[in-house]
Amino acid sequence: MSRRRRQRSRPKPFPKAARKIGLQPGALVYVGAPREGRVSIEVFEYTATELREGHDAPVENALVTPAEGGIVWVDINGVHDPSVIERIGRHYGVHDLNLEDILHTGQRPRVEETGKYVFVVMKMLRFDPAEGAIQTEQVSIVFGERFVLSFQEGRHDVLDPLQARLRKQVPRTRFLNADYLAYSIIDALVDNYFLVLEAIGERLEGLEDDLVVRPMASQLQSIHALKRELLFMRKSVWPLREAISILARSESRLIHDDTRVYIRDLYEHTIQVIDTVETYRDMVSGLLDVYLSSVSNRMNEVMKVLTMIATIFIPLSFLAGVYGMNFDRSSPFNMPELGWPYGYILFWGLALLTVAGLIWFFRRRQWI
Amino acid sequence: MSRRRRQRSRPKPFPKAARKIGLQPGALVYVGAPREGRVSIEVFEYTATELREGHDAPVENALVTPAEGGIVWVDINGVHDPSVIERIGRHYGVHDLNLEDILHTGQRPRVEETGKYVFVVMKMLRFDPAEGAIQTEQVSIVFGERFVLSFQEGRHDVLDPLQARLRKQVPRTRFLNADYLAYSIIDALVDNYFLVLEAIGERLEGLEDDLVVRPMASQLQSIHALKRELLFMRKSVWPLREAISILARSESRLIHDDTRVYIRDLYEHTIQVIDTVETYRDMVSGLLDVYLSSVSNRMNEVMKVLTMIATIFIPLSFLAGVYGMNFDRSSPFNMPELGWPYGYILFWGLALLTVAGLIWFFRRRQWI
Amino acid sequence: MSRRRRQRSRPKPFPKAARKIGLQPGALVYVGAPREGRVSIEVFEYTATELREGHDAPVENALVTPAEGGIVWVDINGVHDPSVIERIGRHYGVHDLNLEDILHTGQRPRVEETGKYVFVVMKMLRFDPAEGAIQTEQVSIVFGERFVLSFQEGRHDVLDPLQARLRKQVPRTRFLNADYLAYSIIDALVDNYFLVLEAIGERLEGLEDDLVVRPMASQLQSIHALKRELLFMRKSVWPLREAISILARSESRLIHDDTRVYIRDLYEHTIQVIDTVETYRDMVSGLLDVYLSSVSNRMNEVMKVLTMIATIFIPLSFLAGVYGMNFDRSSPFNMPELGWPYGYILFWGLALLTVAGLIWFFRRRQWI
Amino acid sequence: MSRRRRQRSRPKPFPKAARKIGLQPGALVYVGAPREGRVSIEVFEYTATELREGHDAPVENALVTPAEGGIVWVDINGVHDPSVIERIGRHYGVHDLNLEDILHTGQRPRVEETGKYVFVVMKMLRFDPAEGAIQTEQVSIVFGERFVLSFQEGRHDVLDPLQARLRKQVPRTRFLNADYLAYSIIDALVDNYFLVLEAIGERLEGLEDDLVVRPMASQLQSIHALKRELLFMRKSVWPLREAISILARSESRLIHDDTRVYIRDLYEHTIQVIDTVETYRDMVSGLLDVYLSSVSNRMNEVMKVLTMIATIFIPLSFLAGVYGMNFDRSSPFNMPELGWPYGYILFWGLALLTVAGLIWFFRRRQWI
Amino acid sequence: MSRRRRQRSRPKPFPKAARKIGLQPGALVYVGAPREGRVSIEVFEYTATELREGHDAPVENALVTPAEGGIVWVDINGVHDPSVIERIGRHYGVHDLNLEDILHTGQRPRVEETGKYVFVVMKMLRFDPAEGAIQTEQVSIVFGERFVLSFQEGRHDVLDPLQARLRKQVPRTRFLNADYLAYSIIDALVDNYFLVLEAIGERLEGLEDDLVVRPMASQLQSIHALKRELLFMRKSVWPLREAISILARSESRLIHDDTRVYIRDLYEHTIQVIDTVETYRDMVSGLLDVYLSSVSNRMNEVMKVLTMIATIFIPLSFLAGVYGMNFDRSSPFNMPELGWPYGYILFWGLALLTVAGLIWFFRRRQWI
Repeated sequence: MSRRRRQRSRPKPFPKAARKIGLQPGALVYVGAPREGRVSIEVFEYTATELREGHDAPVENALVTPAEGGIVWVDINGVHDPSVIERIGRHYGVHDLNLEDILHTGQRPRVEETGKYVFVVMKMLRFDPAEGAIQTEQVSIVFGERFVLSFQEGRHDVLDPLQARLRKQVPRTRFLNADYLAYSIIDALVDNYFLVLEAIGERLEGLEDDLVVRPMASQLQSIHALKRELLFMRKSVWPLREAISILARSESRLIHDDTRVYIRDLYEHTIQVIDTVETYRDMVSGLLDVYLSSVSNRMNEVMKVLTMIATIFIPLSFLAGVYGMNFDRSSPFNMPELGWPYGYILFWGLALLTVAGLIWFFRRRQWI
Repeated sequence: MSRRRRQRSRPKPFPKAARKIGLQPGALVYVGAPREGRVSIEVFEYTATELREGHDAPVENALVTPAEGGIVWVDINGVHDPSVIERIGRHYGVHDLNLEDILHTGQRPRVEETGKYVFVVMKMLRFDPAEGAIQTEQVSIVFGERFVLSFQEGRHDVLDPLQARLRKQVPRTRFLNADYLAYSIIDALVDNYFLVLEAIGERLEGLEDDLVVRPMASQLQSIHALKRELLFMRKSVWPLREAISILARSESRLIHDDTRVYIRDLYEHTIQVIDTVETYRDMVSGLLDVYLSSVSNRMNEVMKVLTMIATIFIPLSFLAGVYGMNFDRSSPFNMPELGWPYGYILFWGLALLTVAGLIWFFRRRQWI
Repeated sequence: MSRRRRQRSRPKPFPKAARKIGLQPGALVYVGAPREGRVSIEVFEYTATELREGHDAPVENALVTPAEGGIVWVDINGVHDPSVIERIGRHYGVHDLNLEDILHTGQRPRVEETGKYVFVVMKMLRFDPAEGAIQTEQVSIVFGERFVLSFQEGRHDVLDPLQARLRKQVPRTRFLNADYLAYSIIDALVDNYFLVLEAIGERLEGLEDDLVVRPMASQLQSIHALKRELLFMRKSVWPLREAISILARSESRLIHDDTRVYIRDLYEHTIQVIDTVETYRDMVSGLLDVYLSSVSNRMNEVMKVLTMIATIFIPLSFLAGVYGMNFDRSSPFNMPELGWPYGYILFWGLALLTVAGLIWFFRRRQWI
Repeated sequence: MSRRRRQRSRPKPFPKAARKIGLQPGALVYVGAPREGRVSIEVFEYTATELREGHDAPVENALVTPAEGGIVWVDINGVHDPSVIERIGRHYGVHDLNLEDILHTGQRPRVEETGKYVFVVMKMLRFDPAEGAIQTEQVSIVFGERFVLSFQEGRHDVLDPLQARLRKQVPRTRFLNADYLAYSIIDALVDNYFLVLEAIGERLEGLEDDLVVRPMASQLQSIHALKRELLFMRKSVWPLREAISILARSESRLIHDDTRVYIRDLYEHTIQVIDTVETYRDMVSGLLDVYLSSVSNRMNEVMKVLTMIATIFIPLSFLAGVYGMNFDRSSPFNMPELGWPYGYILFWGLALLTVAGLIWFFRRRQWI
Repeated sequence: MSRRRRQRSRPKPFPKAARKIGLQPGALVYVGAPREGRVSIEVFEYTATELREGHDAPVENALVTPAEGGIVWVDINGVHDPSVIERIGRHYGVHDLNLEDILHTGQRPRVEETGKYVFVVMKMLRFDPAEGAIQTEQVSIVFGERFVLSFQEGRHDVLDPLQARLRKQVPRTRFLNADYLAYSIIDALVDNYFLVLEAIGERLEGLEDDLVVRPMASQLQSIHALKRELLFMRKSVWPLREAISILARSESRLIHDDTRVYIRDLYEHTIQVIDTVETYRDMVSGLLDVYLSSVSNRMNEVMKVLTMIATIFIPLSFLAGVYGMNFDRSSPFNMPELGWPYGYILFWGLALLTVAGLIWFFRRRQWI
């Protein structure tokens, strides 16, 4: 992985807050990754029998008052234009502090209930195969009695299947409750988490198989990257669980009993996501242990070879050195071995004996 | 263990979810390991005095309305045919979301109570000696006032003793409560956990005994595999405990007071399983510590031998090298030792003295 | 410690459960370590003024109905004969599931209250100096309004002081409440825990003192064994705390207000035991750190000596090797040093200078 | 980083308490870092339409009784003069124990409600780029129905934007509630936490990028310093979260419903700070792992090179030593190789073969 | 630190319990460190205007019944004489189990409320500079409506400032509530904790500064000792926090509302102590990491030097060995280099080139 790529794909715990410091609470300033282009707005207005769609609509078209028994869903793709968010927010009666949260894209997932609407902030996670990393964006959902607003940071296809279902399903019985539509949006986003987990799971298994074959320094980087991504995923999912649990137990009149059973099901899904994230975290720690042990095992092997070569040849070298000494051979006590007719052969015999002895010693100690 | 086998037996945190993404909640699609063959259905219809059995019955025979005072137990082996599950589920009035859970075999163990039935999802664990690994399957149990449905992923003999007891026990006093029959099924599955734990315990002890004798790299793999299996076992048991605790405290009219004492007993069993799993996890961590220490101890031994050989022979080699130098002996100051009649013997004396000194030094430092 | 002994004394998380699988809940089968011999029964029947004792009594004598104002205590030593347990249990009205718990000796400590009696399961811990290990046995206590049953796995002297107090104390005011007698039995068992903790504490301190002097591989085994024993002790004490807390807060009419203050005191004792166990666990982890650091410190020392010897003599050997070369001395450029009259002395000077320089270098780096 | 600087910037868990020991509770003695100079007092007295300011005012001017519908904010910069604190505190009816807390600058963040005022202690954190470290000071806020007192340890510009907003905003609708003003002060301080976190985040990323390039001992120091600063930051933020949660749920009549929504928003901010601190802590631990692994990887590389050089040349040296021996060549069995005409070329051939063989061996073992 | 000292100063988790085993609950036996000498008793009897003191008083003088509106404080220094404790306890109506707790000095800090008195057990901690260790003693406080009893294990000056305040303060308004006096005693003891923490903090910083300069094995001992002391300190403080929290929330008529605000303040202090203990524990763990890393860093340095010396000189030695071989120079193929007139100079050139090449290699790999 090139260093530049790694850096680009590193998730940030929160976007630069500096631009915001010193402003009054509720001031509407976009705080997130810099973006360009117009905010794209999709409007879905429907009753049990009819569906009107507006794609890439101007802001004015989003300021709808749905007919009796009808629902309007405004899907805003892009939150970098505060004026758009403000106009829509004001029309549907959203509090300034919540609008601020929509613009400030580093929010923790949470649910807030007011008498008039329910406000949900959560994360959309997507595994970007090109980057080899998880992409995080903030999605805010506001739903009241007859309207649902969804704010995404950019334009994605995550909600396309939901929109297709909305078009097909006539009469739109369940969708006639705004809370069911909001639930469906959240459900679609949570379903995506499973895809991300699958991608992580595959990398985890790939890594595990590689580790068995041969530990490499680059694997340490991969383990560390996985750990980091699971850390950020965890940060997105734990508060979401809490938020959905609040939604499931909520006594707000905006949430119908029919929808409640679906929200409980959704709650089960988030717990499953958390479970898997935690299991993966445990597995990553396990991998790190295995990696470190493998590295130290290889190290030991290397050391053993060094030790054996050295312990075998160092004494032999000494022996050869001894018989290379120049003591005065005129004295009969000085190196008489050199004068023996079979001295050289004895020397080799001694050398081979030493080697054999040491190998026996190594074997007994089970080093070979 | 061959690599292929290891891979096959590796438990997955959840089955591929991709096929499911984009469908509406409650859509009935099988999400699990691919399976073939017909779904095998067993039907037990009994009253206090009579028992009618249907083995490998067609779906129609499973759609029973039990007589007054009678109970019907439908044991479905195989959940890969959504149409079968749907027909049976509809007949007994099971909610679509629960049917979806039955088909989606990656559920967390849990209990759900509705007015008409109680829905229990849990895991069946079996230690497969051939694979040397734990096999996990999902078992879903639905029981109402007069019926019990049990859904297994495949055909196993875990419930055979229960069926035998059902046949023998006439009059079937306790079994005339559907909740007692459901409890008996869960109890049979939990009893199996103890067998799995025993198998793990034996491998743990075997590993521990081996570690004392000689640490090997393959043991690290085994420790890691054990850790992983305990991790997955834990994931199956902790939520089960919670589920059974909900059952024990439930105020549903479907659970009779007589059965409650048995469920509390079952609850104690799950706590015992958890306790043992946690103890085993602690023991596995301990084993890892022992393994790593043993490896580093061996490494130290190897290093000590190298050090001793090297520190003894390196100075001696130098000495031999000195007396192999070719300084011009015509000068009386150049290497007069070479001319001494006992020079060679003195050399060996010096060498032995050095060795003795070093050995004394090693002993004093308690290295030998 | 011989390997055989270690194996015998290793505590098991639970006894073989296999014999039990497939039986109906409440079936009375002994599941524990294999034992032989007759079950020994002691019967104490007393009123305020009178005490009748029966030692090693036949089962029939244990089936007492105490006189008005009297208490009977049946102390059963040995639970490996289901028929004895069943007869006694039936006589005093104990539920089958509780009798099963008495026979199945791998229970977690706990308290169960029914309208007619209170059922307590706990562990007796004894430090066996011969084995050098903790022995665990299950003790079950059942007390009703006028009777106390205590079931031990074997015959021990732990309750002897209590029986002596019972004999001496006339009138037996407090003992006339069955709950106080039951409390006294539990208290005697908990007091024993302190003895076990003392034995562990002494081994811990001995180990700590040894570690400072010299780390050895056997200490690692001892640390590991201590850790394991504390793990099992913890498993016995934590649930006991919970159980006694339930007892202390119980609103059962079987527990009198006078006894409650004693139970609260007992509760404090269990917390003290837990506290000490946890402290010991922390200390054992600390010991492991110290051990590992000591080992690596020694390793470093060894390596430093090797490095110093090698770095001193390897260059010297090279020098000696140089002057052992056989370049043709007829050329004046080839090894003129060999012809110098003081060449050899200069060689030694150079060698000593190198040694001095290296020693200075080591000192500056603070390696010596 | 020079050692002196490191020492100066090290945050202390609490200031010297010794001067205080033995005094009665509520005795007013300054306990904090030694400071000099006069305490600087700023007074803001305003109604919906009017604002009177007093900068660096004498104590007397701080003892205001605000007009009906007006608010007074006394911002005291410096708490090292107990007499000033005492006079102001007495005037506004603050309890001695709270005044003591203001003077004793090592308080944990917390909230205390009395009938007459709410007392908030918290920490102001500032990242000092000159020191490269976090500066901590205690800020105490007391607010009643018509007054707000803020006590800082020194004079800082953190509250300047708030004062500017106060001046601009006419009519001061929201600021006419003392609780909103107090909230604004706390909010300004918490906003500053984000700046500190950003500074830490940047150092963390810088460190991470450096680690990949080359591990160095100084990085260990930096990791340790970061860990320590996060530890202290954590100590400031966790209790603050609790304090603000108390404030948000408070039923004190001093907190208006309008303000409550802002306090809940503030609560979200503190949770976000905690989240980021915890994430950073996890990342720092991860960094430590990566650092240690990198160090051990480098070590392994070094060892491998040593091993390869040694294993290649030690056998060769032995061979050269052999042919440097002086066995008596008159015997035909003694070193006949030396007499071969191509002996020297054969020697080199053997040497090169050995090298090639070893390199092949290393490659096969994947060491190169 | 000499070994003997270390051993003496090692805090014990609890005193020998063996003497106590088998006695009935509530039996009064002293269980603590062996002590000698008479128990010293101080009696303070006072009203709003008058104070009578009795120093080293006989037991009889401690058995006071205070006048209407008066308070008696009996400060017992030494609990090793059960008869004294029993007489005083009986006079003031203290329950046997509480008297037992006073004598058994290994109690956990806790609070017990009865209708007639409140019983507080806690630890007095003192840093003994002579021993360089923390001294722990048990202090038990019993207060009723008009009396306060304090039991210390020995005679210390910790309560002297409180007694001085008692003498000075006329009229003794607050002290006329027994609960305020009891609070003052506890407060004095908790204030002492801060002194202990300061002493630990100083040792911690000293250690940290030393570590940076040079890691030594003795530091490991110090880190381990600090860890252990913090472990024991923690064990004293956590339950104390709980105890004081119970006191603060107590609805006993023995605790007046005026005192409650002081107890809450005291509660804050204990939390501050806990906070600091936990921070210190984290710092000690951090130190251990730094120590271990430093040790391994030094090890690496040592190894690098070895590697460089060896890799430079081992090939050179081989070269020198080659030219020391004795091949028969009569063949023109055998070692012609030896005959070259500039052979020796070429040899040195080759040697220097090898060194230069290796140094370049080391530099490129950033080892130097």
